[in-house]
Amino acid sequence: MYREEMVTKRMVTGITAPKGFKSAGIHCGIKKSKKDLALIYSELPATAAGVFTTNKVLAAPVLVCKEFLNSSDSFHAIIINSGNANACTGKLGLENAYKMADETAKRLKIKSNQVFVSSTGVIGEQLPMDKIIKGINHIVDSIEDGNDLATAQAIMTTDTFPKLFNKTFLIDGKEVSIGGIAKGSGMIHPNMATMLAFITTDAKIEKSTLQKLLKNVTDLTFNKIVVDGDTSTNDMVLMLANGASNVEIIDETENYKIFEKNLYELLKKLSIDIVKDGEGATKLVEINVEGALSNTDADKAARQIALSPLVKTAIHGEDANWGRIIAAVGYSGIEFNPDLFELEINEVPILKQNYEVTLPNELANQKLKSSEVKIRVNLNAGNGKATIWTCDFSEEYVKINGSYRS
Amino acid sequence: MYREEMVTKRMVTGITAPKGFKSAGIHCGIKKSKKDLALIYSELPATAAGVFTTNKVLAAPVLVCKEFLNSSDSFHAIIINSGNANACTGKLGLENAYKMADETAKRLKIKSNQVFVSSTGVIGEQLPMDKIIKGINHIVDSIEDGNDLATAQAIMTTDTFPKLFNKTFLIDGKEVSIGGIAKGSGMIHPNMATMLAFITTDAKIEKSTLQKLLKNVTDLTFNKIVVDGDTSTNDMVLMLANGASNVEIIDETENYKIFEKNLYELLKKLSIDIVKDGEGATKLVEINVEGALSNTDADKAARQIALSPLVKTAIHGEDANWGRIIAAVGYSGIEFNPDLFELEINEVPILKQNYEVTLPNELANQKLKSSEVKIRVNLNAGNGKATIWTCDFSEEYVKINGSYRS
Repeated sequence: MYREEMVTKRMVTGITAPKGFKSAGIHCGIKKSKKDLALIYSELPATAAGVFTTNKVLAAPVLVCKEFLNSSDSFHAIIINSGNANACTGKLGLENAYKMADETAKRLKIKSNQVFVSSTGVIGEQLPMDKIIKGINHIVDSIEDGNDLATAQAIMTTDTFPKLFNKTFLIDGKEVSIGGIAKGSGMIHPNMATMLAFITTDAKIEKSTLQKLLKNVTDLTFNKIVVDGDTSTNDMVLMLANGASNVEIIDETENYKIFEKNLYELLKKLSIDIVKDGEGATKLVEINVEGALSNTDADKAARQIALSPLVKTAIHGEDANWGRIIAAVGYSGIEFNPDLFELEINEVPILKQNYEVTLPNELANQKLKSSEVKIRVNLNAGNGKATIWTCDFSEEYVKINGSYRS
Repeated sequence: MYREEMVTKRMVTGITAPKGFKSAGIHCGIKKSKKDLALIYSELPATAAGVFTTNKVLAAPVLVCKEFLNSSDSFHAIIINSGNANACTGKLGLENAYKMADETAKRLKIKSNQVFVSSTGVIGEQLPMDKIIKGINHIVDSIEDGNDLATAQAIMTTDTFPKLFNKTFLIDGKEVSIGGIAKGSGMIHPNMATMLAFITTDAKIEKSTLQKLLKNVTDLTFNKIVVDGDTSTNDMVLMLANGASNVEIIDETENYKIFEKNLYELLKKLSIDIVKDGEGATKLVEINVEGALSNTDADKAARQIALSPLVKTAIHGEDANWGRIIAAVGYSGIEFNPDLFELEINEVPILKQNYEVTLPNELANQKLKSSEVKIRVNLNAGNGKATIWTCDFSEEYVKINGSYRS
């Protein structure tokens, strides 16, 4: 079973791999029995960066994080609850989000706007603040090094396995680490969708440089994954850099490139874990489009393939129905000549130009039997290329989402 | 069972309700045993109009119909096959589409460009032309009045019931009829998607007026239905007007309005039948968005709600999860204030401004138990409004589309 393999292979250190970070994940009572409150803490003040949902409907914690990111230059903590999104909750919801920051700050003896707030779960219900405040009091006493598995579990909703990862590498002979946890599952789409990720590093990075790094790498990773095309009200990627490694990353240097590469690998790993854990997913699908007129066109085409329920169900049914793939590119809105379209599945050519079928159906279907499927499309028009990661679409997705609240 | 109810209630006259039209539907051997070849014929020359897929990948018959619509002013027939889309079939596919017109024209003793050609089914396989040519020879002898049920059956793919309907009304004291057959099922989306519809009328209508009528009414009906967001390579709506009623419809007259109204009702009926028969559909969903800044905005919002797999699965699971509806509007790209969002389900208010829940969840869920669900969203921003018809998303959809070719 695919899922179990993921769980046993996972790494158990994430956000506390970098020096000076502690974390905790506990049950405070929003959910029946599973962990539902997480805290990430750096004793040293950290710079921060954030990338947020593009949905016009912004959950209260998103509003609060955006405000704090503007009003403060140093940060110490992120408090996160699962089980309730605190979205579409109006004035009271906003007050409650501030309160989560206030209470955490009070207990940690820092300022409120040094604490980011994040929520995920059901939309349209007020947070049970009594439980959360009790939980905050309790969780501050639980923070420690190496608690990352519990922390990653506490931010899960319909995720079936926790997502955490870290990278440690040398810069100028000194050890630097980046760690991260994430949650995804349903509603995963470009531009963030009920997707939370929290990244820590012990590098020293100036605020604007950190924001640039996080934005650029997010565009190539979290913004390149598609589960179902829905975009949520709560998504955010937050990153804290506390400088505990005594290594500074300065823009436009060789060290910047090394750091960026490692950050890319970390975020890519978390992104792919999110796709693998897409609701009901049984296959990881990597879609490469090349030969488009521009990278933007390639991205549009790859995204439309990844969004097509007909393509996703065909992959699930292990049917190499290339007609659906070319049709999806056809309505992606880009310019291309269908006669030049070429397709490979798992590195075996299926279709050459002028609709020449190079592998009979029954054999092409065999290529889809693996749990990881690579689709490569060549439009033979230009140099534009893009990669999108997605998953197949199973009966299970419908079952999970038809009864999420019941 | 919803489907059976549809079948027993259906009308059995479609395209031959208007005077002077005959039709036939037979099995020629593209499919194993089901009907797969249809012919619509008018002895009198008819003017014609067409609306075609917006997919960049155009099936051969679409190219041929577009050419004939330009090169000829009078038409006599439409030959249609199911079971094979003749799409992505290159030069040979195009030759075969012309050949279908040629053979039909030869047998009917008319010109090739007076015969429209249409195909639906699997993409990327060449037509079995020997079977089709034999079929054409045979079908010409079978045409008659009142054969519409067989004709509607012969254009079906995964449709579970034939779709046909007619309207007869008086203009200046004289009887005028419009009739139609359609097929839909998967890939139904705005702007046509593996959706074929053939409309006949015995009114006399000049070519440009007929094109205007068909385009305008299609925009309000076939282009307002959404099943899964996929757009096919083969869609077309064709209309023939043979003048046999001796009633002429002239642009910008009162009679034009009467005719347009009846055409709207006919196409709306066929559109809704297509949605009801969406692959795996168990509920018909009408989405009304009002109070948008423009009609275009209202259309975008309604369409995004209709496209959201999360909304569609929630409706299937009878979960009045309004958070998913507001979130879908939030990423539709339109301007609105979420605080002013209001929602009704089957005419009962569920959510008022400032997220005031007016009907508790358990009761709201009850409203989704019917087989027809009306969702009304008020954005309270302007006068823009739009209606979209869609269906829910069931496990059955995945099953049908995961194994379409096996």
